[in-house]
Amino acid sequence: TDDPIPTPSVPPPDILRCAYMEIVVTDLAASREFYVDVLGLTVTEEDDEVVYLRSIEEFIHHNLVLRQGPVAAVAAFSYRVRSPQELDRAVDFYTELGCRVERRAEGFTKGIGDSVRVTDPLGFPYEFFYDVEHVERLAWRYDLYTPGALVRLDHFNQVTPDVPRATRFMQDLGFRVTEDIQDDAGTVYAAWMRRKPTVHDTAMTGGDGPRMHHVAFSTHEKHNILAICDKLGALRRSDAIERGPGRHGVSNAFYLYLRDPDGHRVEIYTQDYYTGDPDNPVITWDVHDNQRRDWWGNPVVPSWYTEASLVLDLDGNPQPVRERTDDSEMGVTIGADGFSYTRRDEDEEMPEWKKGEYKLGHQL
Amino acid sequence: TDDPIPTPSVPPPDILRCAYMEIVVTDLAASREFYVDVLGLTVTEEDDEVVYLRSIEEFIHHNLVLRQGPVAAVAAFSYRVRSPQELDRAVDFYTELGCRVERRAEGFTKGIGDSVRVTDPLGFPYEFFYDVEHVERLAWRYDLYTPGALVRLDHFNQVTPDVPRATRFMQDLGFRVTEDIQDDAGTVYAAWMRRKPTVHDTAMTGGDGPRMHHVAFSTHEKHNILAICDKLGALRRSDAIERGPGRHGVSNAFYLYLRDPDGHRVEIYTQDYYTGDPDNPVITWDVHDNQRRDWWGNPVVPSWYTEASLVLDLDGNPQPVRERTDDSEMGVTIGADGFSYTRRDEDEEMPEWKKGEYKLGHQL
Amino acid sequence: TDDPIPTPSVPPPDILRCAYMEIVVTDLAASREFYVDVLGLTVTEEDDEVVYLRSIEEFIHHNLVLRQGPVAAVAAFSYRVRSPQELDRAVDFYTELGCRVERRAEGFTKGIGDSVRVTDPLGFPYEFFYDVEHVERLAWRYDLYTPGALVRLDHFNQVTPDVPRATRFMQDLGFRVTEDIQDDAGTVYAAWMRRKPTVHDTAMTGGDGPRMHHVAFSTHEKHNILAICDKLGALRRSDAIERGPGRHGVSNAFYLYLRDPDGHRVEIYTQDYYTGDPDNPVITWDVHDNQRRDWWGNPVVPSWYTEASLVLDLDGNPQPVRERTDDSEMGVTIGADGFSYTRRDEDEEMPEWKKGEYKLGHQL
Amino acid sequence: TDDPIPTPSVPPPDILRCAYMEIVVTDLAASREFYVDVLGLTVTEEDDEVVYLRSIEEFIHHNLVLRQGPVAAVAAFSYRVRSPQELDRAVDFYTELGCRVERRAEGFTKGIGDSVRVTDPLGFPYEFFYDVEHVERLAWRYDLYTPGALVRLDHFNQVTPDVPRATRFMQDLGFRVTEDIQDDAGTVYAAWMRRKPTVHDTAMTGGDGPRMHHVAFSTHEKHNILAICDKLGALRRSDAIERGPGRHGVSNAFYLYLRDPDGHRVEIYTQDYYTGDPDNPVITWDVHDNQRRDWWGNPVVPSWYTEASLVLDLDGNPQPVRERTDDSEMGVTIGADGFSYTRRDEDEEMPEWKKGEYKLGHQL
Ligand SMILES: [Ca+2]
Ligand SMILES: [Fe+2]
Ligand SMILES: [Fe+2]
Ligand SMILES: [Fe+2]
Ligand SMILES: [Fe+2]
Repeated sequence: TDDPIPTPSVPPPDILRCAYMEIVVTDLAASREFYVDVLGLTVTEEDDEVVYLRSIEEFIHHNLVLRQGPVAAVAAFSYRVRSPQELDRAVDFYTELGCRVERRAEGFTKGIGDSVRVTDPLGFPYEFFYDVEHVERLAWRYDLYTPGALVRLDHFNQVTPDVPRATRFMQDLGFRVTEDIQDDAGTVYAAWMRRKPTVHDTAMTGGDGPRMHHVAFSTHEKHNILAICDKLGALRRSDAIERGPGRHGVSNAFYLYLRDPDGHRVEIYTQDYYTGDPDNPVITWDVHDNQRRDWWGNPVVPSWYTEASLVLDLDGNPQPVRERTDDSEMGVTIGADGFSYTRRDEDEEMPEWKKGEYKLGHQL
Repeated sequence: TDDPIPTPSVPPPDILRCAYMEIVVTDLAASREFYVDVLGLTVTEEDDEVVYLRSIEEFIHHNLVLRQGPVAAVAAFSYRVRSPQELDRAVDFYTELGCRVERRAEGFTKGIGDSVRVTDPLGFPYEFFYDVEHVERLAWRYDLYTPGALVRLDHFNQVTPDVPRATRFMQDLGFRVTEDIQDDAGTVYAAWMRRKPTVHDTAMTGGDGPRMHHVAFSTHEKHNILAICDKLGALRRSDAIERGPGRHGVSNAFYLYLRDPDGHRVEIYTQDYYTGDPDNPVITWDVHDNQRRDWWGNPVVPSWYTEASLVLDLDGNPQPVRERTDDSEMGVTIGADGFSYTRRDEDEEMPEWKKGEYKLGHQL
Repeated sequence: TDDPIPTPSVPPPDILRCAYMEIVVTDLAASREFYVDVLGLTVTEEDDEVVYLRSIEEFIHHNLVLRQGPVAAVAAFSYRVRSPQELDRAVDFYTELGCRVERRAEGFTKGIGDSVRVTDPLGFPYEFFYDVEHVERLAWRYDLYTPGALVRLDHFNQVTPDVPRATRFMQDLGFRVTEDIQDDAGTVYAAWMRRKPTVHDTAMTGGDGPRMHHVAFSTHEKHNILAICDKLGALRRSDAIERGPGRHGVSNAFYLYLRDPDGHRVEIYTQDYYTGDPDNPVITWDVHDNQRRDWWGNPVVPSWYTEASLVLDLDGNPQPVRERTDDSEMGVTIGADGFSYTRRDEDEEMPEWKKGEYKLGHQL
Repeated sequence: TDDPIPTPSVPPPDILRCAYMEIVVTDLAASREFYVDVLGLTVTEEDDEVVYLRSIEEFIHHNLVLRQGPVAAVAAFSYRVRSPQELDRAVDFYTELGCRVERRAEGFTKGIGDSVRVTDPLGFPYEFFYDVEHVERLAWRYDLYTPGALVRLDHFNQVTPDVPRATRFMQDLGFRVTEDIQDDAGTVYAAWMRRKPTVHDTAMTGGDGPRMHHVAFSTHEKHNILAICDKLGALRRSDAIERGPGRHGVSNAFYLYLRDPDGHRVEIYTQDYYTGDPDNPVITWDVHDNQRRDWWGNPVVPSWYTEASLVLDLDGNPQPVRERTDDSEMGVTIGADGFSYTRRDEDEEMPEWKKGEYKLGHQL
């Protein structure tokens, strides 16, 4: 990266985990129906403007905030830190970086106490908090489970033009990389990084940014994810299914990508692996490996690469989006100069059914 | 249909179920590896030329015969009948139709006794038998199960140009239709029909025929099908996955389509419904309903519509393929004059990610 | 058997399948809560006295009728026949046997037309019908599925003192035996028999009878059965779980036994095998094989052997119960003279944890 | 506790997770067959005396060591620490407590480098290490998965007479309690405690000790655990199943307990919840709650309460076992003075089938 973000002289806050995302939705009733009636998230609290939602195993006030607003966007990527004292560290860390930093003793959303919001050096609205209202952990409430029950918030995914620059900054913030996608020339297309010992709390996806690629909830088993698809079919809302279900190469998890009524992307995810050891082996995937994003080699739809949600600054205005200048993952894997393989050292082209619509100029 | 096949004056044989398919493969070792090492079918018997395979819950000698030969094709769609006497009925039934009929007391394949092979009026090589060697039903042998264990042969699927003509003939043969795909003008694109009380023992798919579209084995649960995909990924053979996994609209079953080393298509299938009552409701799906073939609205790859296996006459020569003259399902659902919908009475076009590569002239 | 039921000179009715059970319950509200709110059966129709319930894949009016009454009992084991004409056959068949036979053109329960009820030679209230009101098959209504969705009625289970006598009679009625439990002396402890090609439509369990042992509904997958247990725990109704979940030896199905508010036993069941061929291999289990009833060797609770529901005559009075005189399965597998083994030819006794409470005089 | 273990003045080592258990087995071939051929653990390395095994998602050398020896026992409960420096802390911590401490730069088992073994104040052989040989993480090797694949080592479980005493000591060692079982008088029957953010890395079970109650491996899904039971049935080894499968109340996980050829108890476990926040709510279960150990209220077999493995001192001699003086969980929940309930405030006794063999003087 030509333009590295300097490493602050002060230590970063000790982050526990990604905790909630606040999204702005343009039709609160429609979004509530999607997240509550279709996906089955639990309403902790709500009013005419905001709905606070949580997953079944959660004991903090919320994992997702839906806020009515004029433009669909993300207001906050919010992380829980290990103690109240870590908020001071967050303030110092971002202040030294010249970021805009706001702190409110009473918190920015209901249920959350003292918290810090910043516009980070990559342009994302990040939040840190420790104080939070405890609510009933519904894990044992099997009378409330639906066939597609979402049990935890698993991770965020952010779109940013320069992945190595973003990754190094996140490492300064205390994150550890678990997997990434590169090519032989060293271009990095995406990177996954964690605080809690799963594959990630957030990932950096190369593209025009800052934008929000998706927010991911986990289920207990794979059939729970299939049940969500089945229900969307029954509701004649199958067009909400953008990609999957499938098995990821990266993370080894089973996945599904949905689009909510505003187009915000939601992943449903299950069964990645433990990454908590300091020497956890980092896995680098070749961008031309057709199993990297879908272990079964099923084509990624173009919208998944190109579309993402705007993010807001601390005044609630959309952040300007800067173009990626490195190669695009979609471009190098298909199109005139792109290629993908199932078996690295084989010359044979992939069969038609694995190429999807990514062949430049593909015709029926 | 302009050219109906006359209904014979004699009764058809009383068919129990689809029992096995005999396929010609061009590289027996490669096919054996696919069906045995990858898919886990059990070898009942084998020699240098032929491999006899069965599923875990089967007690008859085989459900699939792989025979080494010069051209990949299907040598027999074989059905079990209720008693030895039914073979005489089969002979009479097809003889009256002017079909070529052969009978061998010792059977056409190992493990099978007295049997009748015909080239049916649609051009397919059909076989009927009752006598069969019993082998161990491995249902309780959980020490032999793999994560993707195939437990039963479920159905065949045949490609034929004129679906109503074929369906009426199959009804004369004693089959009952359970579901079909039509348009408002009454064009029939496919029909499913059964003897045993599942959704089908075979289906007629509109297209250039006679050809074999696929043979289907069932698993106990959906995760077994996902395990097959995962294993193919691990073996770097994910390009064998042509379509799915997904949930069918038609049949309500969970499915996956694979292509074997010769391109023969194999479906893995689970959890359709009981159809054994005479008044079992027939379900007609609109061809423009985007959930008919995949309940989640995921696009069908073109190869699934266009590619199929040749079938052989009783001398082992490939049958000539006649073109379909009715509209093609792929043509009417995409392309210049085609369309599909998620919600019937909505004008809104489907999102890009649901259109797949079927948009005529789609460009990256 | 010393007292065989004569084989009628007329043919039996052509039975399709077990179709519904009518049970008398002493607290209709409590039973409705159990079957609808807890188990998720669908109410087709109801009034103050009766609730008509069906499973998700059913298209006939009901699979279970709850009728308020003074004594918990079974009013009908009801089977669907292949055509209206079969009712005449049923009348003739049972009339020749000297049974009490009633026929009502308008049927005995809502949704059912012309039907025949008999007290059969074994003392059970049997019903036969063809005419039935069709209702929506909810198979595709995944918006209505619960985690423990019951998809089909699978079978009945009847308690009768003399199993061979009952079995021969049922064979005269057109049933085929699929599995049974015997000892070396030829005593038969239980037998499973079918019309539809699953392991059974009903089973005969040796014991004081006539009584109803259980009625069984099936789920798609094993996790659906576990979900029912989890929900019962969440509702603090785990004491409704009498036995299981477990894997049966007989039938190879996965199972769970519940007790409803009146003590009627309900089985939840999934994944037995196809039995539709005339030469389907019959499996005989040794009564001393500790894996016959639970493949994992987990002890059967005594109540499962000893408790069962009364059955009614056609006037609604409980049938007298006659004692079994043959050895009891519980007696021969435990107790002073009983034994069970995990490995037939091994002298070693089973470990304490496999013996359960069946050891005569077991003390803490 | 009357006899608290003093809190050392020095900080404890920073423990990452339970990493492996070393057990002494009396017939190495029999044990290898059980853990490798039946349970499917992967052999990293082996010789005539020792077998080193790991789970599918593991990247360190082993999770289980089988060592041939004269007396079945546990040689080490081994934990991985965050860095090499933590070993010095471990030495100081236990030295101050007056424990026997041994350190070997080359480690005590193959694949492990510099490590510390101690006999802890509770009498257990504990080990700490950081240096370890990395091996292939087989997570993506679906070609190697069995239906019951064990993916991680999840936790240990130790038997100790005085649970509060042990718990306080473990808290000094840096563990956090997540759940426990108590009665109204404050007697503690068991406690679960963790370093990694699952419900536990180890648990303290009240009883005669020090002994090892069990070691637990996790699977991805519940059906994997059922598959292990099915396979044991197929191998006619169902008597290895001591308890379960079932759903725990404590931990909310799905479980199964097996006994290996030496009687060492192995749990198979899946799907507990995230506990990594410092204020994670501690759950206290009432010892009389019949759903605490099995959410479905199925009886715990007595052997599960009373039997456990010896543990060794650093010379390889079995530690003497000290009796529990507090009430026993089995005693207070059954027997003359014991009781259990499904619904706390209900007087009604549990049905017979829920009491199991724990009724004092229960007779057939
Ligand atoms: Ca496509
Ligand atoms: Fe993701
Ligand atoms: Fe099919
Ligand atoms: Fe049953
Ligand atoms: Fe445990």
